[in-house]
Amino acid sequence: MSPLDVKRLREEFQILDQEVHDEPLVYLDNAATTQKPKQVLAALEAYYQKDNANVHRGVHTLAERATRSYEEAREKVARFIHAPSSRQVVFTRGTTTSLNWVASYAAQTLQPGDEVLISVMEHHSNLIPWQEACRKTGARLVYVYLKDGALDMEDLRSKLSTRTKFVSLAHISNVLGVINPIKEIADLVHQFGALLVVDGAQSAPHIKLDVQDLDLDFLAFSGHKMLGPTGIGVLYAKEKWLEQMSPIEFGGEMIDFVYEQEATWKELPWKLEAGTPNIAGAIGLGAAIDYLESLGMEAVEAHEQELVDYIFPKLQAMEGLTIYGTQDLAQRSGVISFNLEGLHPHDVATALDYEGVAVRAGHHCAQPLLAHLELPATVRASFYIYNSKADCDKLLDALEKTKEFFNGTL
Amino acid sequence: MSPLDVKRLREEFQILDQEVHDEPLVYLDNAATTQKPKQVLAALEAYYQKDNANVHRGVHTLAERATRSYEEAREKVARFIHAPSSRQVVFTRGTTTSLNWVASYAAQTLQPGDEVLISVMEHHSNLIPWQEACRKTGARLVYVYLKDGALDMEDLRSKLSTRTKFVSLAHISNVLGVINPIKEIADLVHQFGALLVVDGAQSAPHIKLDVQDLDLDFLAFSGHKMLGPTGIGVLYAKEKWLEQMSPIEFGGEMIDFVYEQEATWKELPWKLEAGTPNIAGAIGLGAAIDYLESLGMEAVEAHEQELVDYIFPKLQAMEGLTIYGTQDLAQRSGVISFNLEGLHPHDVATALDYEGVAVRAGHHCAQPLLAHLELPATVRASFYIYNSKADCDKLLDALEKTKEFFNGTL
Repeated sequence: MSPLDVKRLREEFQILDQEVHDEPLVYLDNAATTQKPKQVLAALEAYYQKDNANVHRGVHTLAERATRSYEEAREKVARFIHAPSSRQVVFTRGTTTSLNWVASYAAQTLQPGDEVLISVMEHHSNLIPWQEACRKTGARLVYVYLKDGALDMEDLRSKLSTRTKFVSLAHISNVLGVINPIKEIADLVHQFGALLVVDGAQSAPHIKLDVQDLDLDFLAFSGHKMLGPTGIGVLYAKEKWLEQMSPIEFGGEMIDFVYEQEATWKELPWKLEAGTPNIAGAIGLGAAIDYLESLGMEAVEAHEQELVDYIFPKLQAMEGLTIYGTQDLAQRSGVISFNLEGLHPHDVATALDYEGVAVRAGHHCAQPLLAHLELPATVRASFYIYNSKADCDKLLDALEKTKEFFNGTL
Repeated sequence: MSPLDVKRLREEFQILDQEVHDEPLVYLDNAATTQKPKQVLAALEAYYQKDNANVHRGVHTLAERATRSYEEAREKVARFIHAPSSRQVVFTRGTTTSLNWVASYAAQTLQPGDEVLISVMEHHSNLIPWQEACRKTGARLVYVYLKDGALDMEDLRSKLSTRTKFVSLAHISNVLGVINPIKEIADLVHQFGALLVVDGAQSAPHIKLDVQDLDLDFLAFSGHKMLGPTGIGVLYAKEKWLEQMSPIEFGGEMIDFVYEQEATWKELPWKLEAGTPNIAGAIGLGAAIDYLESLGMEAVEAHEQELVDYIFPKLQAMEGLTIYGTQDLAQRSGVISFNLEGLHPHDVATALDYEGVAVRAGHHCAQPLLAHLELPATVRASFYIYNSKADCDKLLDALEKTKEFFNGTL
């Protein structure tokens, strides 16, 4: 039985109470972005209606209130991931910016002959920045492949060496839903003196993260995938790496002294936050964290696990349906990619939309993974706190109808 | 007489209807950030409550609606600045990111011996990125100075040469409020084959911009300074330069094909928009533009000019008060920097806050300008559409009280 009272909780998500093609909306595209509870929208509204001002630079009352709220949001993020200090929490535009900045930092230190290890299941945002870092420096980009639809740990072990300088991995695959054993990987990576970068876009919203327990060097995640607003994300890193990082962007807020021909930077985290930040976005993310913590991240995780336990065997049993990735539910989160035999994933997603079910179809920004799996595309259903077993049943029912419809017309 | 009905218009800005230190709030910190009308907040709310989904990649109904709204916002921006095409409108995090990207592009082409021309009145965001571009390439960063508190056009002419590759200037100074003659400058700059970059952070919100008439190569501005949300900004450029620009960030959305060791980019503008964009931010900026256009930018400009015409002579006449920058009102926008004799600007701003008047004090992210003026800091009052002559009177009155208070205690 789910630890979440989904029926009550859904009342806080007005968007879910609508019809699409005359069917009640079943939103199963949570790996792309999540909906926002009224508490998050209320936080945005309250900020804009009461406190809106630019931060850090003002002595007037609104500026002080805005600065306090913005920095409180940083404290919330730090607590949420158990960072040693909020100095180690940098607000960015999102996971993509965070990972790009880490790869830019890496490019300052990589040498020809060095290696960067990523997996074939990475999202493009944790892949192209490393291609660029390697192209610029002459380092090699080395891929770890899959075994039984999960990360091949033997392959990882065999490719780690003293040449390895950075290992950058998704915590949870946005296509396969597989959870990578990051704590074990951190231990291995550190044995070779390499740094571990974790793309937490699909984990921070769904499972309890402890950057100290996991011993992460860098962690990136986005607000909008965890009930927060668009346009805000986080880069966490160990303090020593942040101290070494040169600012990627330059402007107001991040400086100490500026002369005509040179400038010096503020201390952390502000040296990495040039210009007016997404103040409302950070405050909205803080409200999203409050909301998730009021549910409890263990409950969030248990709820999603229950949904997966419920639907996975039913999908496995459906004729003509293939699920990609490991079939071991202990290694899976609430993202399920699949195809229906003989049907193009886009046609399936379009047919599901006509039944009110929102799923995604495509390469999910992971073309090398799909090439590796020899697939042009998949259908992806992804779950979150407001999804219920009734949503699962609706998906199953809509898939059966889709099969019938296309089999009838083919 | 103002073309704006300020009394009616203020009803749309709930934040202004509050007391600070038991005094009605008079918000005169608009050069830092502006307040948001209820129409902008309603657009954010409507997006999050009805259409929220990730853009471009989804085939389901919400994703299609979100994509349409996001791209409509781009069309609004293009119309607002009279861009030839919305392909030339790139959404960024803000002016700072936009200017950093232009300077990064410049750094790809600058050579030792080349020169970049900026003015001593630039905001740090249009200054430090050029320091970095010059540091990386061996190009020289050359400053244009002031004459009578405005840009010294003779100095500009004398420093332009075939060595000049980029000229990057604020359209309106965020400290002095001086309006630079950008059209005339564009003509000069182009005679030498250089490119003109304009920091429009203080002009796009306040005057009608026509990038084709002004013949700008690049234009950067922010949403939050023109009634829009935080975390969204614009980079406009001529299409040929955007085509030449390499992406600065890499990830989802901006790719065409991704292989393990290389990737190709989408067409404009998407190749420059990696990752999930600030969808709600763009839509909110679109609503802000709708609002400004409903007032008419000529009316916005005329209203601010009227306020400046009203308060400027009164400030000039105030004993012990010095206004910085040109005293020619034809060259000024609604930003006024000043000091009270013998009083520290921070003390003045704090005292004004006790009277409910929000102004800024400090270096306004323009340390080289303040060094040039031999000032540690100034007080800055900046006006926008919701400010009235009553606000001006309140500022004047509060300044008199501040003088009395400090003269009494000194």
